[in-house]
Order: sequence, then C-alpha cells, then structure tokens
Amino acid sequence: MKLIRFGELNKEQTGIAIGDKYYDTSAFGEDYNEHFFEQDGLNRLQKFLDDNQSALPEVPAGTRLGSPVARPSKIVCIGLNYADHAKETGATPPAEPVIFLKSTTALVGPNDDVMIPKDSVKTDWEVELAVIIGKKASYVTESEAMDFVAGYALHNDVSERAFQLERSGTWDKGKGCDTFAPVGPCLVTKDEVDDVNNLRLWLTVNGKKMQNGTTANLIFKIPFIVSYVSQFMTLLPGDIISTGTPAGVGLGMNPQVYLKAGDVVELGIDGMGTAKQNVVAYAKN
Amino acid sequence: MKLIRFGELNKEQTGIAIGDKYYDTSAFGEDYNEHFFEQDGLNRLQKFLDDNQSALPEVPAGTRLGSPVARPSKIVCIGLNYADHAKETGATPPAEPVIFLKSTTALVGPNDDVMIPKDSVKTDWEVELAVIIGKKASYVTESEAMDFVAGYALHNDVSERAFQLERSGTWDKGKGCDTFAPVGPCLVTKDEVDDVNNLRLWLTVNGKKMQNGTTANLIFKIPFIVSYVSQFMTLLPGDIISTGTPAGVGLGMNPQVYLKAGDVVELGIDGMGTAKQNVVAYAKN
Repeated sequence: MKLIRFGELNKEQTGIAIGDKYYDTSAFGEDYNEHFFEQDGLNRLQKFLDDNQSALPEVPAGTRLGSPVARPSKIVCIGLNYADHAKETGATPPAEPVIFLKSTTALVGPNDDVMIPKDSVKTDWEVELAVIIGKKASYVTESEAMDFVAGYALHNDVSERAFQLERSGTWDKGKGCDTFAPVGPCLVTKDEVDDVNNLRLWLTVNGKKMQNGTTANLIFKIPFIVSYVSQFMTLLPGDIISTGTPAGVGLGMNPQVYLKAGDVVELGIDGMGTAKQNVVAYAKN
Repeated sequence: MKLIRFGELNKEQTGIAIGDKYYDTSAFGEDYNEHFFEQDGLNRLQKFLDDNQSALPEVPAGTRLGSPVARPSKIVCIGLNYADHAKETGATPPAEPVIFLKSTTALVGPNDDVMIPKDSVKTDWEVELAVIIGKKASYVTESEAMDFVAGYALHNDVSERAFQLERSGTWDKGKGCDTFAPVGPCLVTKDEVDDVNNLRLWLTVNGKKMQNGTTANLIFKIPFIVSYVSQFMTLLPGDIISTGTPAGVGLGMNPQVYLKAGDVVELGIDGMGTAKQNVVAYAKN
C-alpha cells in the first residue's frame, strides 16, 4: 500500500495512492498515527481496502498533501551515513551511526513551502530515505529489526548549517526549524519495495541536479540502524528514522551554495514518488 | 496550583496537590496535555477547583505519581548552563545556550525506578529546574517569554556519559534512554514561585549530598532561554525545557562515580517538592 494524508495542515484526512490517483479512506475512521500502527492498522487498512476500494471517493487533483504519517513521538536522523557526503563535509565516516533528533514541529507535507528561518544564511537541502516504525522497538536485534518497520517515505532533511555547526551545542539547533521536515508524498509499505538497498535518490534546485545517489551506498543499512537506535531509545509506532543523505548538499560545494527565497527544490526516490518545495522567506505566522 | 498525575504508567489520572495531600481531579475530564494547555486549561482548572475543591476525592497515600504533564511533543535541554558544572566537565561556559533533545519515551514519574541501560557503565545524575511551556511559542522575545511559560517542575536529566560523549555524534544518544527523565512530583504554576532565580536545588546519592546549587547561578536565565529556543524550533503547549544542572555530577568527580543498581537518588528544588528514584539494572520489558 501507499498511504497518503491530504487536506489542511494539522487537519489532514487519510487516503491511499493507487497508480497516480489518490483515494479518500476517511471512512476507515482512523488517522495514520501511533495508535494506528500499534493496533495492527496496516493489516486492518488492507482489509478495509479489500472490502471498500471500489467505493472510495477520489481526492481532487491539486489537493494539498500532508505528511503521510501524523506527528510522531520523534524524528531520529542518522548523520554522515554516505561516505561521499561525509567526505564533502570534511568529516571522517563515523565508526558507528551518528544520531540526532529533529523537532517534530518541523514536519510538513511533501509539497509545502520550505521557510528560511529568521536570520538564516545557510539553509541547505538533504534528500533522504526515511523509515517509518511499525511496532514499539527497544533493544531489538539486527536480524529481527525489519519486523519493526512499517515502510518508507521520501524526506528532505532541511538543515541550517550555521545553526547546526557554528552556534554552540548539538546539531539539533539547525535541524528542527519549522518546515524543515517535508515528508512524503506517501508511506510505501515495506512489502512494496523489492530492494531497499538499491534505490536511486536525487534532488534538484531550480532544475539543476544537486544530489544523485543510491541507497546501495548507505554505510549503515536499515536493519542495523533500527537495531542500533533501539539500544539508546525506545522507538514508538509511527516514529521516523531518516537514514542520511548522499553527496551534493550546499555545504559541500566550493563555494558553498545555500537556498534563497524563490528557489524550487524537487526530490525523489525510486518507488517513493517525488516532492516539490518552494523556498520562501521567513514570515511570522 | 500544583498539578500532579497519578496511577499506572501511561494511564495516569489527573490531580492537584494541596498542602501535603493529593486530590483527584479526574472529574475535570481532561489530561494535562498539549490540548489542555493550549485551550487555557490552567484557568479552566482553577475555576473547576473554585467550584469543586471541597468535593474532590483524596488520592490514597502511596499511589504512584506520574509525570505531572502528559507526554509532550519534545523535551529540550540546555547544556552547561551553570559555570561550576561547565568547569567540572572540562568545558568552557558556552557563548550561547547549548541545546539538545531528549527522547520523550524517557519520561517517567518522579519516584519511578531509573534503569541503567544495557551495557552502560556511566549512568549519571543531573538535578534540573524544568520549565513547562503554556502557549505555542515561535520567535518570542525575551521580554514576552514569560507569557509562554505555564510553570515549573523538578527533573533529573539522567545521562549516560559514554553514550553521550564517546559514541560518535550528538549528546542525544546518551540522554533519551527509557526512564532517563523522571519529572515531578508536580507542575508548579508560575504564580506560585516568588523568585525563580533564587531556588536551591540539590541531589543526594545514597544519602550523600552530591549537588547543592541555586538557580541564581544560571548562566542563561529562563526568559532568555525560552526566547532563544523559540528562534530554532516552535515550542508547543506542554513542551518541557530543562534548564541545566549545577556542579556535582558523577562525570565531574575524581575519580568519576556512576550509578549502579541498588543506589538511591533523591533530589529536590525549593517549592517544587522532592523525588526519590531507585536505580535498577537493565531488564527487557
């Protein structure tokens, strides 16, 4: 299945993608949130579709998409997980995964605007494959880790490099600004992905290809990452783990290039769909 | 008011502390969560108490206390915010606040067991004054920041120093283990605190005084912290900001001293009550 959420921010309804059309599953009666995943929601949703798919209303073209999962308890990110990206930032590939957390208030839909924070001059892009957790996971082994994965989604791990690297303290300061986590268009359940370790992921800015990688180059693979993170914190159903970005971010260029209002970012991963974000200046909401 | 939550973990009911007794406010009908704070819950609860206080059932002595706020969207922590603590860890007091995030799955009640994580040898204590956010806060100024504060609570920012400092990446890895955020006994609304910048805070391990500080020594004061954090991420009602710990942690001792199963940690802050945590070995739940 490919799960979507659509409608106004923070008031999204649920749906499903079939081919290139979206259908409304509001009649299923549950949001795609922690409770849904915890209560075997994916299997129950499949059964609902088996019984009702032909009767589902189509979602009108042009309707806003939200994040395909409702606000999770946390967004965990893995840093420097592609050797070419570690190299471009001047870092040594880490001996074990780098973990940081992204404030969940950063979560938005795949085609929402990315807002440059106030006083930011180094807002950067990072196309990433995100893993969505399906079951509570604490101290799980690498061999059992995939049982705890619901599926995957496309994520732009937007990052303010000055906040992240030049302002004292941890990376978290440059990772959790509003709109810094566009996720989607859809959550692709793991059964739909033949080989998660062989997906092309790419990102363009104003049509120019900036990132063009493959998950084949992940230093730490998904089962290892899920197991590893679960040694340090309990993962809850619906939690997001973003697995890192390949080379081609603005920080790694010479001279460095950062986003400015008016830029258009497009990104995609094989089988996960594409997303398009307009970059806008800070405005108090 | 002094808000409490009591009962079984993740099924807590709400209450109120009056003198040294706890009363059940379940009849108010709302948990102390994001929605409660967002919808002017503190004023509505006060009115409920004005009308119903004499009829509230007393909570039996010995009942477990939970965190006085339900699981928030995030727990933000400020690092190295007392000069004496920065010095004992070998760090220079930061030019601006250090921010890190604690997984909210770490949240437990004030007298719950603290569990040493699997393979941990450096589990440490940190008594801290936590601020509870009352209203959504984004880019607020220092002068208006206190309008966004609901109150305060006692917090033990339990930390695994090897995970935090020796395992690649950010501090988050050593801060979010299960049971690493005992909060409470109560949320003390800000009107009950005469001078938040003059509160004694202390912590003992097996009866031996380890920390004995005062919030007068906070490098960055609460209005500045709230304003500062809100420049990097939106704070939601119910969010927790922990303001840092004074000197006296195990990491700062020579030789270093860390918690082991069987230890008893007690801590308190003037006007915020006290907490007592038994330290237990890792056990898969």
